[in-house]
Amino acid sequence: MKEVNSEIPEKSPLEYAVIDSRREERTGYPEAVYCQGKTTEQAEGIILRMRAQGLPVLATRVQGELAARICGRCDDARYDELSRLLTVGSFCGEEERRGLVVVAAAGTSDLPAAREALLSAEFLGSHTMMIADVGVAGIHRLFDRLPDIRRARVVIATAGMEGALPGVVAGLVRSPVIALPTSTGYGASFGGLAALLGMLTSCAPGISVVNIDNGFGAGYQANLINRLN
Amino acid sequence: MKEVNSEIPEKSPLEYAVIDSRREERTGYPEAVYCQGKTTEQAEGIILRMRAQGLPVLATRVQGELAARICGRCDDARYDELSRLLTVGSFCGEEERRGLVVVAAAGTSDLPAAREALLSAEFLGSHTMMIADVGVAGIHRLFDRLPDIRRARVVIATAGMEGALPGVVAGLVRSPVIALPTSTGYGASFGGLAALLGMLTSCAPGISVVNIDNGFGAGYQANLINRLN
Amino acid sequence: MKEVNSEIPEKSPLEYAVIDSRREERTGYPEAVYCQGKTTEQAEGIILRMRAQGLPVLATRVQGELAARICGRCDDARYDELSRLLTVGSFCGEEERRGLVVVAAAGTSDLPAAREALLSAEFLGSHTMMIADVGVAGIHRLFDRLPDIRRARVVIATAGMEGALPGVVAGLVRSPVIALPTSTGYGASFGGLAALLGMLTSCAPGISVVNIDNGFGAGYQANLINRLN
Amino acid sequence: MKEVNSEIPEKSPLEYAVIDSRREERTGYPEAVYCQGKTTEQAEGIILRMRAQGLPVLATRVQGELAARICGRCDDARYDELSRLLTVGSFCGEEERRGLVVVAAAGTSDLPAAREALLSAEFLGSHTMMIADVGVAGIHRLFDRLPDIRRARVVIATAGMEGALPGVVAGLVRSPVIALPTSTGYGASFGGLAALLGMLTSCAPGISVVNIDNGFGAGYQANLINRLN
Amino acid sequence: MKEVNSEIPEKSPLEYAVIDSRREERTGYPEAVYCQGKTTEQAEGIILRMRAQGLPVLATRVQGELAARICGRCDDARYDELSRLLTVGSFCGEEERRGLVVVAAAGTSDLPAAREALLSAEFLGSHTMMIADVGVAGIHRLFDRLPDIRRARVVIATAGMEGALPGVVAGLVRSPVIALPTSTGYGASFGGLAALLGMLTSCAPGISVVNIDNGFGAGYQANLINRLN
Amino acid sequence: MKEVNSEIPEKSPLEYAVIDSRREERTGYPEAVYCQGKTTEQAEGIILRMRAQGLPVLATRVQGELAARICGRCDDARYDELSRLLTVGSFCGEEERRGLVVVAAAGTSDLPAAREALLSAEFLGSHTMMIADVGVAGIHRLFDRLPDIRRARVVIATAGMEGALPGVVAGLVRSPVIALPTSTGYGASFGGLAALLGMLTSCAPGISVVNIDNGFGAGYQANLINRLN
Amino acid sequence: MKEVNSEIPEKSPLEYAVIDSRREERTGYPEAVYCQGKTTEQAEGIILRMRAQGLPVLATRVQGELAARICGRCDDARYDELSRLLTVGSFCGEEERRGLVVVAAAGTSDLPAAREALLSAEFLGSHTMMIADVGVAGIHRLFDRLPDIRRARVVIATAGMEGALPGVVAGLVRSPVIALPTSTGYGASFGGLAALLGMLTSCAPGISVVNIDNGFGAGYQANLINRLN
Amino acid sequence: MKEVNSEIPEKSPLEYAVIDSRREERTGYPEAVYCQGKTTEQAEGIILRMRAQGLPVLATRVQGELAARICGRCDDARYDELSRLLTVGSFCGEEERRGLVVVAAAGTSDLPAAREALLSAEFLGSHTMMIADVGVAGIHRLFDRLPDIRRARVVIATAGMEGALPGVVAGLVRSPVIALPTSTGYGASFGGLAALLGMLTSCAPGISVVNIDNGFGAGYQANLINRLN
Repeated sequence: MKEVNSEIPEKSPLEYAVIDSRREERTGYPEAVYCQGKTTEQAEGIILRMRAQGLPVLATRVQGELAARICGRCDDARYDELSRLLTVGSFCGEEERRGLVVVAAAGTSDLPAAREALLSAEFLGSHTMMIADVGVAGIHRLFDRLPDIRRARVVIATAGMEGALPGVVAGLVRSPVIALPTSTGYGASFGGLAALLGMLTSCAPGISVVNIDNGFGAGYQANLINRLN
Repeated sequence: MKEVNSEIPEKSPLEYAVIDSRREERTGYPEAVYCQGKTTEQAEGIILRMRAQGLPVLATRVQGELAARICGRCDDARYDELSRLLTVGSFCGEEERRGLVVVAAAGTSDLPAAREALLSAEFLGSHTMMIADVGVAGIHRLFDRLPDIRRARVVIATAGMEGALPGVVAGLVRSPVIALPTSTGYGASFGGLAALLGMLTSCAPGISVVNIDNGFGAGYQANLINRLN
Repeated sequence: MKEVNSEIPEKSPLEYAVIDSRREERTGYPEAVYCQGKTTEQAEGIILRMRAQGLPVLATRVQGELAARICGRCDDARYDELSRLLTVGSFCGEEERRGLVVVAAAGTSDLPAAREALLSAEFLGSHTMMIADVGVAGIHRLFDRLPDIRRARVVIATAGMEGALPGVVAGLVRSPVIALPTSTGYGASFGGLAALLGMLTSCAPGISVVNIDNGFGAGYQANLINRLN
Repeated sequence: MKEVNSEIPEKSPLEYAVIDSRREERTGYPEAVYCQGKTTEQAEGIILRMRAQGLPVLATRVQGELAARICGRCDDARYDELSRLLTVGSFCGEEERRGLVVVAAAGTSDLPAAREALLSAEFLGSHTMMIADVGVAGIHRLFDRLPDIRRARVVIATAGMEGALPGVVAGLVRSPVIALPTSTGYGASFGGLAALLGMLTSCAPGISVVNIDNGFGAGYQANLINRLN
Repeated sequence: MKEVNSEIPEKSPLEYAVIDSRREERTGYPEAVYCQGKTTEQAEGIILRMRAQGLPVLATRVQGELAARICGRCDDARYDELSRLLTVGSFCGEEERRGLVVVAAAGTSDLPAAREALLSAEFLGSHTMMIADVGVAGIHRLFDRLPDIRRARVVIATAGMEGALPGVVAGLVRSPVIALPTSTGYGASFGGLAALLGMLTSCAPGISVVNIDNGFGAGYQANLINRLN
Repeated sequence: MKEVNSEIPEKSPLEYAVIDSRREERTGYPEAVYCQGKTTEQAEGIILRMRAQGLPVLATRVQGELAARICGRCDDARYDELSRLLTVGSFCGEEERRGLVVVAAAGTSDLPAAREALLSAEFLGSHTMMIADVGVAGIHRLFDRLPDIRRARVVIATAGMEGALPGVVAGLVRSPVIALPTSTGYGASFGGLAALLGMLTSCAPGISVVNIDNGFGAGYQANLINRLN
Repeated sequence: MKEVNSEIPEKSPLEYAVIDSRREERTGYPEAVYCQGKTTEQAEGIILRMRAQGLPVLATRVQGELAARICGRCDDARYDELSRLLTVGSFCGEEERRGLVVVAAAGTSDLPAAREALLSAEFLGSHTMMIADVGVAGIHRLFDRLPDIRRARVVIATAGMEGALPGVVAGLVRSPVIALPTSTGYGASFGGLAALLGMLTSCAPGISVVNIDNGFGAGYQANLINRLN
Repeated sequence: MKEVNSEIPEKSPLEYAVIDSRREERTGYPEAVYCQGKTTEQAEGIILRMRAQGLPVLATRVQGELAARICGRCDDARYDELSRLLTVGSFCGEEERRGLVVVAAAGTSDLPAAREALLSAEFLGSHTMMIADVGVAGIHRLFDRLPDIRRARVVIATAGMEGALPGVVAGLVRSPVIALPTSTGYGASFGGLAALLGMLTSCAPGISVVNIDNGFGAGYQANLINRLN
């Protein structure tokens, strides 16, 4: 790690944020930073403060400029452009990862959310596998990948538009399915509402749903379940 | 046919309705009677007037009392309790039916709409087949019936809840699919809205959608397509 | 078990339903029967057919008349009036139950859904505990019960109105939280929509959500997670 | 055709997409590429891969830059700016086209969707005719064109705002009508919702509806119906 | 007029209502009584108080019991069952009526609202004419009646479902059109929302819209316009 | 007070509810009982338990049967039929009431909610005054009562339909206005949504809003403000 | 008038539009051109074609570039930047104007729509008067202007946010009120929805409503009514 | 104060606005200026006119350019960039402030609205304190600050996403809580709708709600309550 921001001392409180430093103690995992709606300065301040406190950082919805600033200051920062996810430091070493979370994505346009889910689960401690473009309109593509999907302890099924993938998957596997609706689509998809409602009303049990485009939430929950012992 | 209502002579206009007697000439099919929102007297008057003009009648959303009244007056009236569809006389004899319309229904609760579709298509001139309970949560049940579904010139795919059936079917067959959403479900299905949006946003092409629970509309459109030549 | 319906032989197919007898093989659990929207005759037929095939039955949204009919024919039927859940036979013996699913309910009016969740999880193989009336308006009631909630491998947090309970719980425990919105409330709760949206947008990670009033879905998913090993 | 992208060999899988090469076998038509939500690189990769496999390509929602890239590499690429539709190669030669699909558009602002429908139907195998600006506010313009509309085997009726055109057309012709709502309008048209709801609830039978602005879906379904034999 | 309720003297104020006795002075017309949501006692009290003050009464959404009570006490009360409109006394004698308001209704199910509009306009001072069942699905029925519609100074066009009638009419006549959406329909008509949105977004100018099922509002506005001089 | 339920001893916990006996200590006021969604037995049990603990009770949405049961057991129970509000015992004696809360109601149909607000504020410690039927359609009725309204320390302004009353009042008085939307209305009032949105978006400052028909919430908040010192 | 576009001859049809040249004959007024959603070329073509046919033009939602082009070619073009309304030529000379349409606007932000209404009514044949910033939050400003408002034959009342102005005005005047909701506001105004619903559900009769921001529609209808004779 | 705009004399009326100079007399506070939807010229004109009349100005939603113009002309203008709030002159001197309004904000992204609330309350006459980043996901952060929150006469609780903060706070304090929902969030937060509905349906009494992102409204109402005496 590079020397972090010397102007932001560890102890003095930030006026715009309170680092929840006891979160890991309560829940097993450190706080993540949701950057949308924060100014670049605020987000940068929070991330650097967490680093100064020795906390690993997982930040979501990180725009390019903020990513560049953080990567310029922290050697161990990693930025994924497609999902706009940034990590600084590590929470769980590769060798400590356990189980397998499979992320099945219905279409290419669902990959940003899917990848946010995958990278989040990985950061928090799961082995992961991406299975892209297995939407139900060409269902044999899903069946071709069933053996891989069935190896998962937890499946994240991602789709926009009608959001039918989780329901079909849940009828075929023994593991819990986390349904991740995306805002992919137009017209009557109403920004992901169609997918969200479809996933909530699926007649297959074994599904629970996170917010539209909430890849981080899906990955977090999948990892939590995956690491239950 | 029994002697019809002698108090309602053929010629004098009804004050609450205008029989669209030229509809068949313009569109190839006679007018149907949608009974919901009409008083029993109004619906009865319209049906008897059509009979008096020699028109065959297909009436939808027919409550028991109205059905009993009509069946008591017209020998050739047939009432289906599950779908609340009533026919009087016939538009197309059995021997004149053509092609095959398959109605695939996701669950038992979808049968009222599915049956309205099937009986409508049959009345208007199609051979039909019902394939019940082939929802995507147990997708092998759908695959077991694929040979039958593939025999159809037109498929009507009916589902409530997440409404995923039409999208899966459309990816597996060569015929056009009419998607019929139903109000089956609760909570986030919002009276069939989830199914409707799901069907409209399906990523599989070859689907077009009718109103929630509009079995008649699905059957009419399927028959129209089926009989194109 | 009493002698089941001799008129419904095991082999001949029902015209309105296809028992998904291979579901347990694929997913580890047998099919459940959602009774709303089915006629009493249809629901009864399906349940008896499943019994005739030796399948244990979990049926939801069972009205009193149907429950009485089934209980009159099957000695091992059990009906819970508050949640309208009916079981016939058992899938998992008491001694085979594992882990602990805690159901935390915000208010008394949430108990029907909460109990559907609890009984479902129990039927499928989990030890369970109900913690009632711990809504966030009197948050000390929740804190009083935290030791019990923290013993759970999986928490189901149930609430209507603003649906804030899951978010608060998820910030206090290490286990995954299944959020179960209920239709409790009036006005701007819009039949559970407020609770549903609140749970989906919770800023605490570790939450995934099921449909409004879908106690069965919550219990099923919680049990699935609880029994992962 | 120019030499296609030599860096994207035919055999190695794309990590972000799975070409559904068996789609034509199952449904009679090749997969189309929906470009919105895909990065330019992803869309380009998919299109070139399909060309490398000898598949004809129909791509929708193609931005100018992507179109320029593809047209620069493939001699047989054709781009229509108004509808943003791109084709590469041909699926059905002009001489093989059959039947007639008429696209009736209510207003000038509906032409992008209308043209997407027309070009899609043409690409897939139908003769087509555009009839523009025949909205119901000046209904004589529609009547002037009725002879042409009546020549169609299938009519696509396109409208935004109140979406009344399909209902009026369906009462005047013998062919099935595919209703294509557009997002034309403002205020209470809510991005096409008013038109969509209007078309779904039309009291004229013989209509089925596709998603808002889904010209491709309308054209695909119309061609499917048109070519039934 | 019979002797009105002697227990409700003219002068003492009602605790639940304030008769707006200066309304006619300000607006030219007396207050109407909207009875839905009032107890029978409250509605009766208000009506009798108005009569005691010598005001003519037009009351809407009047249930049978209330109507019977009022008709039992006031000789000059008139009740129309279909529209649930009640009048007591007269505001404008038949000979003082002016102009012509035509009420065109799309279907039989729209008649309750249409009739509320017609009777309201008549009570307030307009000659009226009902033209029933001229919905756009059989547009020639509308054309058959155009000469009558064109005689109107103001047209009220009533429709449920897709609500297309006002837009078509407004393109054919010189008079202003008051669009009256009704809750006729099911599914995606969402209680009249589809019709309402359709009327608001009509591309024909010369239309303004009242609330769903607000026949009184339509009739009031039409009469106001009709009697402008 | 009569002898309360001897079968429900003070100490043993209820399984369906936890009396928040420390609420008064934290917030200054005891818990209220919302009875909708509770069985009669549950609501009765909670109320009697609170009485057994010496807590005064304010219960809302109380159906007649429950009211009769409680009034039969507790001498100091008072039930208001219009608002369905029940009190048992008293929290604040008449002589201890302070300040003045004026409840202004737009129409007669808004009185159930208005009265729930008034009785709640009174029970909790405020002097109150009801000003009925001063909706903005006859604005002079409001001006006639302005002197009374201006005497209030807090105004509750209640309205259904377009909900304009609070905005007009807030522009005329110096006290804070609590806006209470009601579900009065039909069609586009969507169960109070129109009034709610209108009140939230009022351009007059000095307004804050409670849930649709939440008279208790309005009265509670008004009393809280009124008694600030 | 400058020489108009010689490249667009009068007779050859435009492929993207059909000038409704018989509209004036049917409805008394020429067609207007709604420019949003049309390309600049299409809008320009339509306007110039209408000019070539000698038709006066009223065009709405005209962007600056289009306005500049038209004004560069037609001497008698007039563009109002605030409302984006463009006229070319005149339909009704100043001396032929009749009656008075008053446009009352609640706030400064409502002026674009208000001005579109005013200029439209003027172009079509009415005398007009703008009364700005008379929203109900400062109701005395409205009362100050009542004498002017009462001089109108028709009032257009414009408001965003809670949209209360039309209801208050309609209770104070004898003329019909056209309610024009605007998209002014944020949050729960949902793009004008709050104002729209408020106006539709107003308890004052004598109001009818046009689409959100549809100043042209309001002005057209007001002029139509104003000029009735 | 610098010399203000000499071109805008005090007396001549603005054509686009009417300064409500009697507002303070009626309500105790001067009019505020909502700048969104006004042109820079209009907003500047209104502000300078108010200054010319000696009125203090609080302006909201002020863009940078407008702020710069005003600050360039008025020495006593103060602009807060985060909340886009501008004040010119003072209404209540620091020494005249009374009581304490605490603004509790759930997250960093809620600070723009929170700060608008705080600065508004301060300008109008309250002492204020900001307590940032105390959302319910890390509830101990809220408990750490409870002593400060309990010192407030009025609490403003601000949150986006699920909006749970006000309900939790209201169960812990004796003062009224003004709930301020923000548009922070994505997907199912639907621009603040989830937070708004959550706050309206909170089961804790003692809460009333303002519009999404309406910091000014919250601060105004809180100050009004705080200064009641």
